[in-house]
Amino acid sequence: MQIQKDAKGEVRKLLEEHKLDGFLFSSQANVLYLSGFRSSNAHVLATRDKFFLFTDSRYYERAKQELKDGWEVVLIKSMKKVKETIRKQGLKVVGFEKDRVSCTFKESLRSKGIVWRGFSNFMGKIRAIKREEEINLMKEGVRRSDKIYKELLNFIKPGMSELEVRAFIVSKALSLGALGESFPAIVAFGEGSSVPHWETSQRRIGEKGPLLIDMGLLYKYYCTDFTRTVFLGKADEEFKKVYQTVKDAHLYALEKVKVGTPIGDVDRTAREYIKKKGYGKYFSHSTGHGVGIEIHEFPRVYYKGKDASTPIEEGMVFTVEPGIYLPGKFGVRLENMVVVKGGVAEVFSTISLELLEL
Amino acid sequence: MQIQKDAKGEVRKLLEEHKLDGFLFSSQANVLYLSGFRSSNAHVLATRDKFFLFTDSRYYERAKQELKDGWEVVLIKSMKKVKETIRKQGLKVVGFEKDRVSCTFKESLRSKGIVWRGFSNFMGKIRAIKREEEINLMKEGVRRSDKIYKELLNFIKPGMSELEVRAFIVSKALSLGALGESFPAIVAFGEGSSVPHWETSQRRIGEKGPLLIDMGLLYKYYCTDFTRTVFLGKADEEFKKVYQTVKDAHLYALEKVKVGTPIGDVDRTAREYIKKKGYGKYFSHSTGHGVGIEIHEFPRVYYKGKDASTPIEEGMVFTVEPGIYLPGKFGVRLENMVVVKGGVAEVFSTISLELLEL
Repeated sequence: MQIQKDAKGEVRKLLEEHKLDGFLFSSQANVLYLSGFRSSNAHVLATRDKFFLFTDSRYYERAKQELKDGWEVVLIKSMKKVKETIRKQGLKVVGFEKDRVSCTFKESLRSKGIVWRGFSNFMGKIRAIKREEEINLMKEGVRRSDKIYKELLNFIKPGMSELEVRAFIVSKALSLGALGESFPAIVAFGEGSSVPHWETSQRRIGEKGPLLIDMGLLYKYYCTDFTRTVFLGKADEEFKKVYQTVKDAHLYALEKVKVGTPIGDVDRTAREYIKKKGYGKYFSHSTGHGVGIEIHEFPRVYYKGKDASTPIEEGMVFTVEPGIYLPGKFGVRLENMVVVKGGVAEVFSTISLELLEL
Repeated sequence: MQIQKDAKGEVRKLLEEHKLDGFLFSSQANVLYLSGFRSSNAHVLATRDKFFLFTDSRYYERAKQELKDGWEVVLIKSMKKVKETIRKQGLKVVGFEKDRVSCTFKESLRSKGIVWRGFSNFMGKIRAIKREEEINLMKEGVRRSDKIYKELLNFIKPGMSELEVRAFIVSKALSLGALGESFPAIVAFGEGSSVPHWETSQRRIGEKGPLLIDMGLLYKYYCTDFTRTVFLGKADEEFKKVYQTVKDAHLYALEKVKVGTPIGDVDRTAREYIKKKGYGKYFSHSTGHGVGIEIHEFPRVYYKGKDASTPIEEGMVFTVEPGIYLPGKFGVRLENMVVVKGGVAEVFSTISLELLEL
């Protein structure tokens, strides 16, 4: 992966902007993004002219092999060595990820002569704009996800448990080279579909009813995210109406994706359409979220909150996933990942949004 | 689950011991342990006479249904309502989990009139002693894990990728009602087995060589953990010698498990035996760790560090997993979960520790 090369320059710009001598990255997502190195314990120290990776004896040898040009790999047992390095480099004001580290970790940073400044989502804007290599990895992931979903449609039979369906998804994902799920797949039959955060269970899939499948792969460290709602048997009029509403809201939201438009407007478009159709209070979550190394990244696609005014930029990747959930009855959610390309939304998945009756 | 009933009394004792008016639990593992309620966003406030559960609109209705006697369920949008409740209850000094929450979260707790005191591993000792119901859940989990492992031995064939083997494990686990893996299974063939934290890959299993399998299920919110190393084809003398050493170290460690013995001595026993056999520097991790709702719990089974002097108690559940890793050659690890019962170690798994040549 080449992504770390540009990222380094962007981090240096941030250091200057925030008048920092250095920044200590401790979340494994940011460490991976900057270094390409994946472990359960590594820190990256960025200074104006150098990049250090600190890791323990379990990962040190591999780190030295994988990180070559422009990296200094340092073996650590605790944060003592990190602080020593900071002092040796003559750094005074150093940033850290206050939204990602525990208070106990913060205490371990205490050191005479170092002024620590906490930042939230320091890398959010950098990571939101994906490079070609990242987009290609996510495309490869979605290609596999689509393949699994198509096979799944033939696999699903009444009488199976929801967990058996999830087992099929995970098993295929791993066999296709994914590192796992990007989140535990949601397989929700009948009433279960009306709960946006349904926990896939041993509940059996019935002869007739809606089936919501929300699945994601972790493919070469990048996440995919995808949802469809199908109907087993013939859908009734109420389901069809709700389905059509969600589908149209999805399509209107996609149309709204344009470089320069505040991301909150994408949500507002879906939300207002659903409201107009009388289902306003049954759309209880945001329209989407950034996706990348992590399943939920900056920006949130929502009309409220601090991300709402973020202008859409070329290269952003996020989900569009409006839904309507009628309590005790059923729910419909239709989700695609999109990349902003040529100024507009390009959908990754090739799976149709048309209502499918199995 | 009845576990929360006793736990409440134990938490009250801790409040008195530490002179706290209340404690705010924010890690989902502790929230689950105390309330039996599982979500991605809930907090438990324990006071000397009351227990509150705070959660957002996604989980509020379910929380009200699931939590009945002795619980007050409060709908929250942010931590504001939590602080209001604390003030209304007249609490002055309140503990929080400084090892589990981010600095940003800690900032959100700031409030006039509340003195926050941070604790690490506040519930560690309570959670280390498992109740009968918890032990039974883990036994049910291990029964399923053993079943999968036995089937796996027939499934494994040269030419398969390590990820395909993991796919088999996950798929079976979910089909047997597990909620997933307790950690990504390690399937390491050949040289890969010499890396204690090998990342299961698309690498193919060869005709001949060692195969290390480290797998765990999440069954009804409890973790299992299990490792065996088998040999495809006929094992050579060096492998046999290393295998025998690890097996004997494992058995000596098991014998050392007795109520009252410092847990560090279990590690020391395995370590000294391995050292005596000339492999001391190739045993690079601790002998084990507590297991329960989380895969790594208090206490660490290690001769060094703050847990070492912890006396073994009836009802503790932990792993015994010595290993020898010869860099660039191969590694052997043999892991069982044990519960301390009748003063000594009872092994959960029924899978033999004898060397298996497939």
